Amino acid sequence: MIIVSDNLQITNPLINSAVDQMNPEPIKKLVNIYVTAGAEAIDINSGPLTRSPEDKMAFLVKTVQSVTDLPLLLDTSNSKALEAGLIESRNHTIINGFSLEPKKLISILPLAKKYNTDIIGYLLYPNSRVPIDETDCMNTALDLYLEFQKADIDDARLIIDPVIAPFIWEYGNHHNRAILSVIKNLPDLLGFPVRTIAGLSNLSSGNIPLERKRLLEQSFLPMLSASGLTLALLNVFHAETMSVARVCKSLLSPEVFSWV
Amino acid sequence: MIIVSDNLQITNPLINSAVDQMNPEPIKKLVNIYVTAGAEAIDINSGPLTRSPEDKMAFLVKTVQSVTDLPLLLDTSNSKALEAGLIESRNHTIINGFSLEPKKLISILPLAKKYNTDIIGYLLYPNSRVPIDETDCMNTALDLYLEFQKADIDDARLIIDPVIAPFIWEYGNHHNRAILSVIKNLPDLLGFPVRTIAGLSNLSSGNIPLERKRLLEQSFLPMLSASGLTLALLNVFHAETMSVARVCKSLLSPEVFSWV
Repeated sequence: MIIVSDNLQITNPLINSAVDQMNPEPIKKLVNIYVTAGAEAIDINSGPLTRSPEDKMAFLVKTVQSVTDLPLLLDTSNSKALEAGLIESRNHTIINGFSLEPKKLISILPLAKKYNTDIIGYLLYPNSRVPIDETDCMNTALDLYLEFQKADIDDARLIIDPVIAPFIWEYGNHHNRAILSVIKNLPDLLGFPVRTIAGLSNLSSGNIPLERKRLLEQSFLPMLSASGLTLALLNVFHAETMSVARVCKSLLSPEVFSWV
Repeated sequence: MIIVSDNLQITNPLINSAVDQMNPEPIKKLVNIYVTAGAEAIDINSGPLTRSPEDKMAFLVKTVQSVTDLPLLLDTSNSKALEAGLIESRNHTIINGFSLEPKKLISILPLAKKYNTDIIGYLLYPNSRVPIDETDCMNTALDLYLEFQKADIDDARLIIDPVIAPFIWEYGNHHNRAILSVIKNLPDLLGFPVRTIAGLSNLSSGNIPLERKRLLEQSFLPMLSASGLTLALLNVFHAETMSVARVCKSLLSPEVFSWV
């Protein structure tokens, strides 16, 4: 399981202002801190970037790459920003991501072919709603894979995000339990060792106390990990969750257990 | 998942002295504290009880029952002590337990039939060694079940303990990963919804720092829980592990998620 930092978000005022001023220094410092905290890949969540999207995403990619060789996830629904980031990208790059939403199939998915990168596909209906049952998730995965094949991309480039739901949502429990099976069974369904990613912050969207958010993360992450999750997207500043993530990696390693 | 307290152990000097003096008060106080901490069943680990085993186990069972109606696990390899405890038992009772070890097949297993109680069977070879691979565990489970059937006990009485190994043991990682599959697949193997139990303290036998012991528990318990573990035997004074256990129960509940 690879730990992906979800910390680099344009919603962070410090990052927003650095991007607005095209000032790389605060971002470089932050990325170094994420790496020290244990990030093994960096999600660059630029949001939709309404003003100068290309310049801003190119700036972000160049800035992050200036301090780390870790893989980058380019996390935007703005295809122009995304392409500008892909042009600048030298590190291993993952597009985050596409879904069955028609706009994303047309504007995002082909970029993985054009730039020969990994791409994350979200298990969501074309209207962006979450399939609840395991069967619905698996059918959605099949539809997603068919679109992926139509775009003529290598299987090895696909990463599936089964989209964790907030637990307090009416069907949250039901859906999140289904996800554990989905992650385990996707490789059998598609016939190749498809990789998976899940964003832990989704677990606790909404106004719940921080201590409970972390407890949800710490309890659900080992379940995801034991199901075979490839990439865990999380806040690397949650020290307890990071400790649990490291232990999960050791527990499930084919090697003799060791503290790292 | 039902939380079983492993705290009531004769190795605790306070408990040892109370048993020696047949003084129920310290034990009553402790059991009340275990219940308050969240125990849903109480393991009475009396050890082999070399002197006056019958009196001591009868005393323990009577004392614990005087303050709680929770299920009791009678945890001794001394069949005389065990039978004395079974005679006194009014609460739901679980014998903990038997294995393929010939002595246990002869002296322990028949008591479950005689007293119509649940019984835990350990997945261990007749020489008490741990089977390492999933296949070896499953073969051992079959052998254990055949002995159980020979003793003419109802299937519903069987609880299987796949015996967690210390992670620092050379094959610990390998075996404990196998356990996750074993717990999940046992009901299919045996053809009925066989219950399972696992003792978390085994994870970290040996001289490792307390913080690391708890981190191992907190990381492995959700994996066991997601595999379908029925009974988790643990130290109910480990507050963080108990919080994680409660969240696991809620996460995997068929009900809408709620904080309890």
